[in-house]
Amino acid sequence: MDHSGADFLQLRPAAAPAKGLTSWLTDAVRTAISDGRLGAGARLPATRLLADELGVSRGVVVEAYRRLADEGLVSARTGVGTVVTPPGPAGRAAAGLATPAVDAVGPLLPLARSAELDLSPGVPDLAAFPRAAWLRAERAVLTRTGAADLGYGDPRGLPWLRAELAARLARVRGVRADPDDIIVVAGVAQSLALLAHLLHRRGTVAIAVEEPGSRGARDELVHWGLTPTPVPVDGLGLRVDELARTGLDTVLLTPAHQFPTGVVMAPRRRRELLDWAADGLVIEDDYDAEYRYDRAPVPAIQASAPDRVAYTGSVSKTLAPGMRLGWLIPPRDLHADLVAAKHASDLGSPALPQLVLAQLIASGELDRHIRLVRTRHRARRDALLAGLARHLPAVEVQGAAAGLHLLITFADDLDDTDLADRIRAAGVRVHPLSWHRQRPGPPGLVLGYAAHSPGQLHEAARRIGEVVRR
Amino acid sequence: MDHSGADFLQLRPAAAPAKGLTSWLTDAVRTAISDGRLGAGARLPATRLLADELGVSRGVVVEAYRRLADEGLVSARTGVGTVVTPPGPAGRAAAGLATPAVDAVGPLLPLARSAELDLSPGVPDLAAFPRAAWLRAERAVLTRTGAADLGYGDPRGLPWLRAELAARLARVRGVRADPDDIIVVAGVAQSLALLAHLLHRRGTVAIAVEEPGSRGARDELVHWGLTPTPVPVDGLGLRVDELARTGLDTVLLTPAHQFPTGVVMAPRRRRELLDWAADGLVIEDDYDAEYRYDRAPVPAIQASAPDRVAYTGSVSKTLAPGMRLGWLIPPRDLHADLVAAKHASDLGSPALPQLVLAQLIASGELDRHIRLVRTRHRARRDALLAGLARHLPAVEVQGAAAGLHLLITFADDLDDTDLADRIRAAGVRVHPLSWHRQRPGPPGLVLGYAAHSPGQLHEAARRIGEVVRR
Repeated sequence: MDHSGADFLQLRPAAAPAKGLTSWLTDAVRTAISDGRLGAGARLPATRLLADELGVSRGVVVEAYRRLADEGLVSARTGVGTVVTPPGPAGRAAAGLATPAVDAVGPLLPLARSAELDLSPGVPDLAAFPRAAWLRAERAVLTRTGAADLGYGDPRGLPWLRAELAARLARVRGVRADPDDIIVVAGVAQSLALLAHLLHRRGTVAIAVEEPGSRGARDELVHWGLTPTPVPVDGLGLRVDELARTGLDTVLLTPAHQFPTGVVMAPRRRRELLDWAADGLVIEDDYDAEYRYDRAPVPAIQASAPDRVAYTGSVSKTLAPGMRLGWLIPPRDLHADLVAAKHASDLGSPALPQLVLAQLIASGELDRHIRLVRTRHRARRDALLAGLARHLPAVEVQGAAAGLHLLITFADDLDDTDLADRIRAAGVRVHPLSWHRQRPGPPGLVLGYAAHSPGQLHEAARRIGEVVRR
Repeated sequence: MDHSGADFLQLRPAAAPAKGLTSWLTDAVRTAISDGRLGAGARLPATRLLADELGVSRGVVVEAYRRLADEGLVSARTGVGTVVTPPGPAGRAAAGLATPAVDAVGPLLPLARSAELDLSPGVPDLAAFPRAAWLRAERAVLTRTGAADLGYGDPRGLPWLRAELAARLARVRGVRADPDDIIVVAGVAQSLALLAHLLHRRGTVAIAVEEPGSRGARDELVHWGLTPTPVPVDGLGLRVDELARTGLDTVLLTPAHQFPTGVVMAPRRRRELLDWAADGLVIEDDYDAEYRYDRAPVPAIQASAPDRVAYTGSVSKTLAPGMRLGWLIPPRDLHADLVAAKHASDLGSPALPQLVLAQLIASGELDRHIRLVRTRHRARRDALLAGLARHLPAVEVQGAAAGLHLLITFADDLDDTDLADRIRAAGVRVHPLSWHRQRPGPPGLVLGYAAHSPGQLHEAARRIGEVVRR
């Protein structure tokens, strides 16, 4: 791999502090190595070339390369130039500050190899994270927030954020909640933990889940003592008749964009679910409802039955999963116990990110950002669809109307785990559908498209097609 | 209360964005109202006077006051000027953005009334939170961090932060840990939650705790299914002979500065505890060990028995409790299960604050900040000690050598809960010692001094003395 230097890492020296160009360049290259953009063996641009392109003195580049060499991250090879050192215990240890990329949906998965195309679902376009807007908002809140906001706070979260969330969720998702009904949590994962532990303590032993459905959620429920009971999903969403047949009184589901099939729950099924919910509890995971490409998203189920639905969502798909910031809006009869559980778990979520999110909502920056990435995500979805149409014309594509991933299924009776392994050997990481199943079913692959450029997605489709046709 | 305007709220218009002076002023006054610096009935400076003092046009001040009036936060009174509206459902609802002060150690306590002197223990000098350094560090990490750091990460926390923590804790606390041994958590509260739930699942039913000891910790253990069994603390620390007599194999304690007595565990007791730990597990809550005023703190117990101690601490007392950021370093045989528990609880702690903390440690800013606040805290402790010596010469003072609080005990057989109520009626909030007891014992008051100026602490001592002598 050779970098001409013209757009090497999209470096912008204007972003560097006036007196710290060398450190800035060193850090930028170190980060690119640690997050896999520069893989082992990648050649860095010649110092003179890069200096010219950046408009900095050549000494800056020479010194940056020297520091990286001291850290064991790069080495000079005669006749080749400066190349990235293969990772290894020695190289990593010497790097010290390097923060290796970890990019699995479930962090307990093995790490993706650098330089492969990782189409694991669930990760948005992280390169689009609004760093400038976030920093602006943080400066604003740090300038004016009172010291009391930094103390031990309300375990439900800061009142300002809960007020902003109540208004925003009412507007974009039809959610019916007062600010006092909302519990700010560390993402949907914490909502499930709090709910599952509470239900378990109240004597619940099993909970209905979608089949196929999120493996991460299922594993989490098991950790907290609940047995996930599979209920099939078809082209209209969860089979509510089958749900009724389980005799269970609690279900976890993703009606706006089912994971992993991508099915949007049909109006008829929603009505059936609401009837069922008269005697049951619905846990509504609204994980990526902001991304609907064909028309406005249908409101949350919670909007129709706030007394029977525990609604949860997060900024993982709109800002970044690493924020660990979300919300739980339970029915009122569970509220006090869940607040006590949140308090006993961590006393409450961190204050500063809550203030920053409130500021981003209040200023309109969050909506602006979502509009921007929705457009980008749609273009990426279209690129993947076009690539699949060209390289895999025979497969059926599902779930493209919304979200950050789609599902392809195969008519043949193939082993999708084996297929995913072979695709990974060709440099593309995807989830086999069976990974998200408890029972046997038709084979498929779950493809996340949000984190890659159209060109990368075309390439991924090409490689997948090659493996499938082999 | 009248404000001359000269130093009204310490406003610095230079901090305002060039084109947003009105919003800046509105926000600053709103924040002061919401955090209690401006209580109900407080009179705002005359618009002309404040405009002159700030060097802004009078229209800016008039417009800011108008917006605050629209929000129901202030109102104009004939002949008096603009005054802060008493809080009430209507006023608060209209305010919308207001974030009322919450300042209890245990957030489920009732709120402190504004304008009272709150000497609840456990809160550092929040006004000293290093806002500028935090923002600088955040800018630095946002500029250079890779997108992968914002994705789903390692549930143990970011490698860079774990490396910085391992080095720092070794240096300042003697802690023996590799970066891979550390689990980044949402404060000591989460460490206790993870440990308690795991121990409960492994069949533990009871755990030894200090008597007196933290009520918040005790309540949390109960939530997670463990029964806290009291073991007395005397002037040398936990009575290890009594611990052995319980027959339990797990103990939670605060050896560096016992909460609430302030006792530093004596060398002899430490040796006894290490002997006991050969067959038991020690949970070492090192919550405020950074603040030792007479000499360098003794190392953590963990330094002597890393295989038998689960060590935990946080930035709650060095930066702010609202950060919700801490660390857990368990014995290796508990490590994997605790990582799985952290993953099942919230997938991992938020990425950005971890990066910022790593940057603050790496740059030396955290140590600089701790040195600064240690000096301030010592001056505050001295002021409280002087006030107590003058106004309560008969009481015994304990625990002044370290930490952010001290304990006064009384020879008489009085009811300290009743005493604390009467002191609160005189405008000072303190914890009665019995609040942190499970068994009857001598009466006392726990006084936190970090969050108040020397003048306020003198005044608090005067009021307490007046009530005690009554």
